[in-house]
Amino acid sequence: MGSLHEGHLNLVKQASEHCPIVVVSIFVNPAQFGPNEDLDKYPRTLSHDLELLRSLNCVDSVFLPKVKDIYPSGIPLEIEKQKGTFIEVKGISHQLEGTTRPLFFRGVSTVVAKLFNIVQPNHTFFGQKDAQQCAVIRALISDLHFPIEMHVGATKREHNGLAMSSRNQYLTPEMRNYATALYNALTTIKNGLGKGERNREILLSKGYEIIEEATKTVKEKNLGFELKLDYLSVADPTTLEELQEIEEGKGAIISGALFVGTTRIIDNLLFNCTL
Amino acid sequence: MGSLHEGHLNLVKQASEHCPIVVVSIFVNPAQFGPNEDLDKYPRTLSHDLELLRSLNCVDSVFLPKVKDIYPSGIPLEIEKQKGTFIEVKGISHQLEGTTRPLFFRGVSTVVAKLFNIVQPNHTFFGQKDAQQCAVIRALISDLHFPIEMHVGATKREHNGLAMSSRNQYLTPEMRNYATALYNALTTIKNGLGKGERNREILLSKGYEIIEEATKTVKEKNLGFELKLDYLSVADPTTLEELQEIEEGKGAIISGALFVGTTRIIDNLLFNCTL
Repeated sequence: MGSLHEGHLNLVKQASEHCPIVVVSIFVNPAQFGPNEDLDKYPRTLSHDLELLRSLNCVDSVFLPKVKDIYPSGIPLEIEKQKGTFIEVKGISHQLEGTTRPLFFRGVSTVVAKLFNIVQPNHTFFGQKDAQQCAVIRALISDLHFPIEMHVGATKREHNGLAMSSRNQYLTPEMRNYATALYNALTTIKNGLGKGERNREILLSKGYEIIEEATKTVKEKNLGFELKLDYLSVADPTTLEELQEIEEGKGAIISGALFVGTTRIIDNLLFNCTL
Repeated sequence: MGSLHEGHLNLVKQASEHCPIVVVSIFVNPAQFGPNEDLDKYPRTLSHDLELLRSLNCVDSVFLPKVKDIYPSGIPLEIEKQKGTFIEVKGISHQLEGTTRPLFFRGVSTVVAKLFNIVQPNHTFFGQKDAQQCAVIRALISDLHFPIEMHVGATKREHNGLAMSSRNQYLTPEMRNYATALYNALTTIKNGLGKGERNREILLSKGYEIIEEATKTVKEKNLGFELKLDYLSVADPTTLEELQEIEEGKGAIISGALFVGTTRIIDNLLFNCTL
């Protein structure tokens, strides 16, 4: 979706190590935004993006479709008005991020299938920061038998631990500072798992504590914004269902979403699994 | 779906004229059957199908996937239980055949996309008898940017006009005889259009008359089955919406569905348009 940061650039570098030809698509995909989401204000920094890509010196082609190229029948945000072909990955699209954004992964799956057919890559590169997206795309590739190998690049972080995201542009430096509560909560849960704790409630409670503390501090300091937790999750890496007990030898995706003011940030850590 | 008849074989011949390599898929697709439809009793005549294909002497490969190859997460007929990737072509999937079979085109779109990605054809061949299916697949190819050219083969008919269909195997000779009422009704409507009639109600009424007459005869003769019309339609070739007035120079798909006993047959004729 453009507004490139180090996370994206790292995926491009990874691609250039695997592939003789590297194609980057930049397209802010209306189908993955709900009617009340930030499609209009989503950051668009095309000329800067192109500069960054040029500086990498490994990109053969940048694909910049117009909305009407991708959605010839148009793409109204209200689902009832939409016409044309849409793809859903059932079973892993409606929990976690799909709870508050029920059409998000339908939009993602649809646009990615189109991009696959246009670009026809042999390899594709997605960032771990969007863990559920990785799971959905992996299922899309496998279920629809796209002859494409998927690679997942590690999440890039700021020095304070905050996962890089185009939406971080919405955050003031102070917000970014407190936004790290999400990463800290996830880290605490992962450390708990690492130390052998397997009880879901005990694991999550340590995460909630960290978020609550940060929320309280922000409120007390009267900083002009609020922190509000959307969710913390410890889920099965394949089904994305919440794990009640984490069996020995079984992995987990530890993830969460946090509102920092009106900006919603997400993050995740992997325990004994890959995406 | 196999159970091949002359209509299918004609598509294969057409393919061999266009393409150096011809691949035929045979797969009875559970996803396009509803819970109360004829998945279990759908005719399966594989060894005869293979003989027929061999006799054409132009088929390079026959693709015979198992259900679990195509639906690795399984494919329960109840939609709520389904997991995995599904494709819908919104706007043209829920009228006509989609009215009584709401998941039919979702199943068709999904399996065809999978077959496309597995076989990776440059050309694909579908039969006109399933006109709405042709429209849906054409939209699927265009919307998802499959690099595939679609061809539509003319409907093959028995000497009495009955459109060839694998489901005709369910019909006794007497049923087949009265089943032609559908073709006759569609022909009458098309002739009306040809003579310049543009009023929907007048056009359709001629068709209904033919069906009613046949229905009455079957009842009077006490033949042990009933005819029951599902629908007659005069629709826009692109949107598949019912045409109220047929504008001069505008084409139409004239289509219908008829129950002959418990067997539902469909047919269509094109007026000034292609699929």
